[in-house]
Amino acid sequence: MTLANGRPYLAIPGPSVMPEEVLRAMHRGAPNIYEGALPDMVAGLVPDLRAVARTSGHVAIYIANGHGAWEAALANTVAPGARVLVPATGRFGHGWAEIAQGLGIEAEVIDHGKRAPVDVSRLAETLAADRAHTIKAVLATHVDTSTSIRNDIAALRAAIDEAGHPALLMADCIASLACDRFEMDTWGVDVMVAASQKGLMVPPGLGFVFFSDKAAAARAALPRVSRYWDWAPRADPQMFYQYFGGTAPTHHLYGLRAALDMIGAEGMEAIWSRHATLARAVWAACERWGADGPLELNVADPALRSHAVTALRIGAPHGTRLRDWVAREAGVTLGIGLSMAEPGSAEWHGFFRFGHMGHVNAHMILGLLGSVEAGMRALDIPFGRGALDAAAEVVAGGCPAPSVQPAKTASTGRRGASAASLDG
Amino acid sequence: MTLANGRPYLAIPGPSVMPEEVLRAMHRGAPNIYEGALPDMVAGLVPDLRAVARTSGHVAIYIANGHGAWEAALANTVAPGARVLVPATGRFGHGWAEIAQGLGIEAEVIDHGKRAPVDVSRLAETLAADRAHTIKAVLATHVDTSTSIRNDIAALRAAIDEAGHPALLMADCIASLACDRFEMDTWGVDVMVAASQKGLMVPPGLGFVFFSDKAAAARAALPRVSRYWDWAPRADPQMFYQYFGGTAPTHHLYGLRAALDMIGAEGMEAIWSRHATLARAVWAACERWGADGPLELNVADPALRSHAVTALRIGAPHGTRLRDWVAREAGVTLGIGLSMAEPGSAEWHGFFRFGHMGHVNAHMILGLLGSVEAGMRALDIPFGRGALDAAAEVVAGGCPAPSVQPAKTASTGRRGASAASLDG
Amino acid sequence: MTLANGRPYLAIPGPSVMPEEVLRAMHRGAPNIYEGALPDMVAGLVPDLRAVARTSGHVAIYIANGHGAWEAALANTVAPGARVLVPATGRFGHGWAEIAQGLGIEAEVIDHGKRAPVDVSRLAETLAADRAHTIKAVLATHVDTSTSIRNDIAALRAAIDEAGHPALLMADCIASLACDRFEMDTWGVDVMVAASQKGLMVPPGLGFVFFSDKAAAARAALPRVSRYWDWAPRADPQMFYQYFGGTAPTHHLYGLRAALDMIGAEGMEAIWSRHATLARAVWAACERWGADGPLELNVADPALRSHAVTALRIGAPHGTRLRDWVAREAGVTLGIGLSMAEPGSAEWHGFFRFGHMGHVNAHMILGLLGSVEAGMRALDIPFGRGALDAAAEVVAGGCPAPSVQPAKTASTGRRGASAASLDG
Amino acid sequence: MTLANGRPYLAIPGPSVMPEEVLRAMHRGAPNIYEGALPDMVAGLVPDLRAVARTSGHVAIYIANGHGAWEAALANTVAPGARVLVPATGRFGHGWAEIAQGLGIEAEVIDHGKRAPVDVSRLAETLAADRAHTIKAVLATHVDTSTSIRNDIAALRAAIDEAGHPALLMADCIASLACDRFEMDTWGVDVMVAASQKGLMVPPGLGFVFFSDKAAAARAALPRVSRYWDWAPRADPQMFYQYFGGTAPTHHLYGLRAALDMIGAEGMEAIWSRHATLARAVWAACERWGADGPLELNVADPALRSHAVTALRIGAPHGTRLRDWVAREAGVTLGIGLSMAEPGSAEWHGFFRFGHMGHVNAHMILGLLGSVEAGMRALDIPFGRGALDAAAEVVAGGCPAPSVQPAKTASTGRRGASAASLDG
Repeated sequence: MTLANGRPYLAIPGPSVMPEEVLRAMHRGAPNIYEGALPDMVAGLVPDLRAVARTSGHVAIYIANGHGAWEAALANTVAPGARVLVPATGRFGHGWAEIAQGLGIEAEVIDHGKRAPVDVSRLAETLAADRAHTIKAVLATHVDTSTSIRNDIAALRAAIDEAGHPALLMADCIASLACDRFEMDTWGVDVMVAASQKGLMVPPGLGFVFFSDKAAAARAALPRVSRYWDWAPRADPQMFYQYFGGTAPTHHLYGLRAALDMIGAEGMEAIWSRHATLARAVWAACERWGADGPLELNVADPALRSHAVTALRIGAPHGTRLRDWVAREAGVTLGIGLSMAEPGSAEWHGFFRFGHMGHVNAHMILGLLGSVEAGMRALDIPFGRGALDAAAEVVAGGCPAPSVQPAKTASTGRRGASAASLDG
Repeated sequence: MTLANGRPYLAIPGPSVMPEEVLRAMHRGAPNIYEGALPDMVAGLVPDLRAVARTSGHVAIYIANGHGAWEAALANTVAPGARVLVPATGRFGHGWAEIAQGLGIEAEVIDHGKRAPVDVSRLAETLAADRAHTIKAVLATHVDTSTSIRNDIAALRAAIDEAGHPALLMADCIASLACDRFEMDTWGVDVMVAASQKGLMVPPGLGFVFFSDKAAAARAALPRVSRYWDWAPRADPQMFYQYFGGTAPTHHLYGLRAALDMIGAEGMEAIWSRHATLARAVWAACERWGADGPLELNVADPALRSHAVTALRIGAPHGTRLRDWVAREAGVTLGIGLSMAEPGSAEWHGFFRFGHMGHVNAHMILGLLGSVEAGMRALDIPFGRGALDAAAEVVAGGCPAPSVQPAKTASTGRRGASAASLDG
Repeated sequence: MTLANGRPYLAIPGPSVMPEEVLRAMHRGAPNIYEGALPDMVAGLVPDLRAVARTSGHVAIYIANGHGAWEAALANTVAPGARVLVPATGRFGHGWAEIAQGLGIEAEVIDHGKRAPVDVSRLAETLAADRAHTIKAVLATHVDTSTSIRNDIAALRAAIDEAGHPALLMADCIASLACDRFEMDTWGVDVMVAASQKGLMVPPGLGFVFFSDKAAAARAALPRVSRYWDWAPRADPQMFYQYFGGTAPTHHLYGLRAALDMIGAEGMEAIWSRHATLARAVWAACERWGADGPLELNVADPALRSHAVTALRIGAPHGTRLRDWVAREAGVTLGIGLSMAEPGSAEWHGFFRFGHMGHVNAHMILGLLGSVEAGMRALDIPFGRGALDAAAEVVAGGCPAPSVQPAKTASTGRRGASAASLDG
Repeated sequence: MTLANGRPYLAIPGPSVMPEEVLRAMHRGAPNIYEGALPDMVAGLVPDLRAVARTSGHVAIYIANGHGAWEAALANTVAPGARVLVPATGRFGHGWAEIAQGLGIEAEVIDHGKRAPVDVSRLAETLAADRAHTIKAVLATHVDTSTSIRNDIAALRAAIDEAGHPALLMADCIASLACDRFEMDTWGVDVMVAASQKGLMVPPGLGFVFFSDKAAAARAALPRVSRYWDWAPRADPQMFYQYFGGTAPTHHLYGLRAALDMIGAEGMEAIWSRHATLARAVWAACERWGADGPLELNVADPALRSHAVTALRIGAPHGTRLRDWVAREAGVTLGIGLSMAEPGSAEWHGFFRFGHMGHVNAHMILGLLGSVEAGMRALDIPFGRGALDAAAEVVAGGCPAPSVQPAKTASTGRRGASAASLDG
């Protein structure tokens, strides 16, 4: 007997759960890619993507995953032989640096380990020391999916500005976009990369590079950019065929349209609040469990934790046993611990992650936490009590009680005016 | 802000959550209904349906809902003017009696109210008093979806037999089939009705009537049965067109095939155990909540409770407020209380139900319970503490911990060599 | 090698080809059936169904196929023991009479064979002879799917009226609705039955009964109507649960909504014109083929031919060989000949049918005809030349050439003003 | 009125018509990308892809379109500053050269215009003149989608070998793979690029690079390859995450699996024969039309014509008018003429293309041709007679008539005993 045979829940940090609306929109015959409804639709994607990224800048859509978007961002801004600075706070900081090196760029990594955010003063010192301005860009991970550390991107900009350094500020928002608050223009980000399969709720296959005029100027100054990555022809959706550097990602575009409709209907402030509250529910449970057991949040300071992914430590072999148990007995797939220990080593089995990004609601998170507690109990892993009540309490508090009169159209409804005032 | 914007969970007692596999199987162009793959497939449905009903008897598939299956069962066995006995334990007992009356059958209802099972001795007395054997059938609800009472069908058979009465025993398993244990042949049931949209996990649109040779003989003795309901031509799937009384329900048949494949892969005993354990988790939480608050399980005796649906009482207006809250804030739709109070009355708002039938796993149930607790807290409805821990404990206990060596067949997991060696 | 391995085309007379939009709309999780979006949607279906049937009368939606709709129509209007008159022009006339007999109704069939329409004068005589008005209804098939004869329903009404007879006029539009022009109110039809899987382009599973106030009065005069068929509670979609006699056909309703949207966008006149023109293309080809070979249209007079289905005679074993060839080599499934000869007899293999109902365009019909010609050639069945050109000529003429300036948005466009004037 | 409102047919040269099976396989929730069913599935894709390409070599799968695959092929084999030779026979030859230039590679184009194949002797001369072996690769288009010219790849290899030149032979099979016969190993191709959305019948989003050991050695000799394009880590599907350079294209992989299953079931020889026969049907019609009108096949010599796409010339403004008419009136979308004239010029409106690649059968092609003839007639474009008959004749001849006994394996048919005995 297993209790897993119902609707499976994939709680890994991407690809995330796809809304029914997105998958349904993608289930259609091939469209004409030269004229008609599809090309007409694409122009409308751009302003909606900008709204998600909080920018009035440019955006290029690539048929690629996040690694491709990383490469595209660099290919358009930094020449081979030039230098970038990468303050890494997890696997994905290092990953972006490796992409840079693959392009012949000199990537200087400042390694902050696996549990600490970017040390802004150290960054400031390095930039100050670069009097020749050989550093062309600072590559920062907003949220590192492996460690779940969330960095203060605005503070990085301030440091760069204070140092009077002309380096571009690039942010990797692959894990965070449409989950954690991100304000591209306000925070002074020059280039931002994202992908479809996390907060945007679309299957993997689209990468996005948002860029400022300053970044566009850097592109213009390069002698050459590879055709596939060149963002210049992707600036004008009227040139549909050129826009995608060849055949368009037809079905993903329909999915993206559906996802942006859902995002637009909910609103960015509401989306960020939802993720923040659900993340607090996760943390509340984990802190209670950890009060009397081996489970530990990877990031100690709540202000530095992502709202989209939570990295956990529980000691080997508990991590792998727990993941196996909840998959096999409760229908939940947890994320493996990434880069926390050598794959194949004993320690590797002591880590795991929760993804809580995109199409995620209170029911899913409370079911996830309940399943994990059941697993720890079944596996005789010690844990502190009261975790599920604590999570439910966060959920309860996150949503002010309705007025006396029950709403008539509750079943599919969203809250309007009061939510707006809450966000204000 | 709302925390509902993720994958919605429909926790009403039918239609139940449809597996992705079922919906995918139904997404196809129209097939030929006269020959080819579809007619070939239908013959294989019959033995699989029999296995679910635990019978070697006959089955007729109707394009109909459960009400249609009720009507079909009677149309084939009881002539207008004849008499049936209906021991009702909820709305659906009365409903079947009304269907009988609509066919001109005299239906004698023994009303057991809303919280008690069939009183077998009372049934026995009624049958004993019917010396002329005017009663042609006893119509029993295995699980009444409105009250969540589960009746002991084998005991009814024993009573009929003890009375030496020739009445057919008919069971309504619409809410219970493939959820609560049901043994058609062992329990001596002559006619059983079911529908597609509950434990069978297929959208509404198919009704099933299983029947014994004794029931077939009753059909043969009738002067006339309406063509649409006549089960005789539906006995031989080789006669495909006649089999469905005209055009076949093509898309539902593909869905049913997918669902029966899933049911066959899991096995009836495993399915019953899963539902039993999840039901116990629900009850454990409800009992804790009720220990210090208004929430109350409609059925006091666990032995009489369905494993597929749970009726609850919480007092008006809490029921409606709670349903509204979890829909609006957590993404969960609960069932309304059915027939517990007059629709439109103040009392009506004091009832609700959980559906936990079919494609349901630990994650879904624990998320449901967490959402309800969050709702009671948000709405200031008093409740006893420890409910979520109690439910998680049932889930943990329901699945014995794996031996030292984690199983290789984790439902979604593939463990690498290093993981295996670590665990060893 | 086969040339069949592409998108299969099912050219049988129902179920018809389902639009992508309809199937996509049906691919979704189960909805709440008690409140919310689904119940809200259903009220809107009724006016749209009325528009398709050209009536201001009532409509009841059943979970059933066409045979169920037949039974429902009779169950609400004619008591067991009463008498109906059935002028049959094919298998489905006889079928409806059998349904009547199954309900205990005396059905007097006037058999017109397989190639002739209803003889109105004969009907008039029969009615005139019924001075006692024992005939309660005349059951007419608008288009008989087996013979493809289309009857003049308005002429039947005139005959009934001239005879001063009070019998209800019932029309079976299962094969014709939304294909051949049908004007329920103008033509004086009291009861009309239809089903989802032909011109309405939705999978089998819904039956429809449209009825006039006079028919409603006949219902009111009956002592009893079976609950499943009773149309009275189905008159008010506000009573959602009662409306469908139990659980609603949730997924079919979404499909029907999508189909009615498409029908509304095209408009009834345009739909009828499309079917008429495509039917003329089919006939043009068949007439050419038949000029020098065994193929023959079952209905000689074009005015009596359906626009939705075409029955053909080609002599045994050519019919079956041709059907097999086009399925195996060209990807087209033709309809079997129905009731033209005894199944199992040698003659049975001499008949086949084309379905051209619902979601059907010029490309599909011209491909169908080309495939059939290829098959006759491959099988050495003689045929007259020029058939495909003749069909293309009908298609060309059906659509006046656009003005000099090519439309810019052609790919998805429909024609507006000029179509309207054409229809006028 | 329009005759277009049925199932639309997209007859452009890619994206091609997607099989229902492929789209259905892609309609599913996100899977785990680290372990489980999806990673298990990918290893099986490689041998099946090899079988399609007729190679025992390597294959790398990219999230990219064909332009990306072009870039990947070059990034792994030719260093910036090195030289490649590009014998162009249409837009896509020039396009690949531009991609090379974007990578800093010197691309020497031998322009063969728009209606001629590669001149092998001219290629041989150029290679012979390159005594220093500065040419690192010959980039040849197997089928150029814009002109529909098909080049003799084996002859190019022979020329290179005869010249004793070490250049790699690279072939672009984006338009031809799984349509026109291609034998990678037998023909001596070192690198072959393809994409998902043509003969492979999967939505755009996957690019493929097949490569020989010789090409792998060229990769090894390069100082650096960009991480996204580096094919080395993509050689071992066991390393799943690395295999796709980050997140895998989850949904496309399911679609690809379904498509490869269909391809495997049909067999490469049968697929090539199907495309060859359908292409001959297209040509037969076009030649007849052209015998007495302006329509002309772009490629005069049948031996040089693609079996997947056909470029046509009809004179402005007929091309655009015809495309508009068949889209608006018959439900068929034709391909625009690509690169035959300046976009925006009057001449541009004189060209169009038929796509007939992948999931295409006799019904679709005959419907396409019938629709085009209807359009020419409606628009008063002159055309020769007998074209549709000629096409049907090719279709008829393409499939030998069954023996006296109709085959039992009619693709969708099940023949009953009586039918078999009749035909015997």
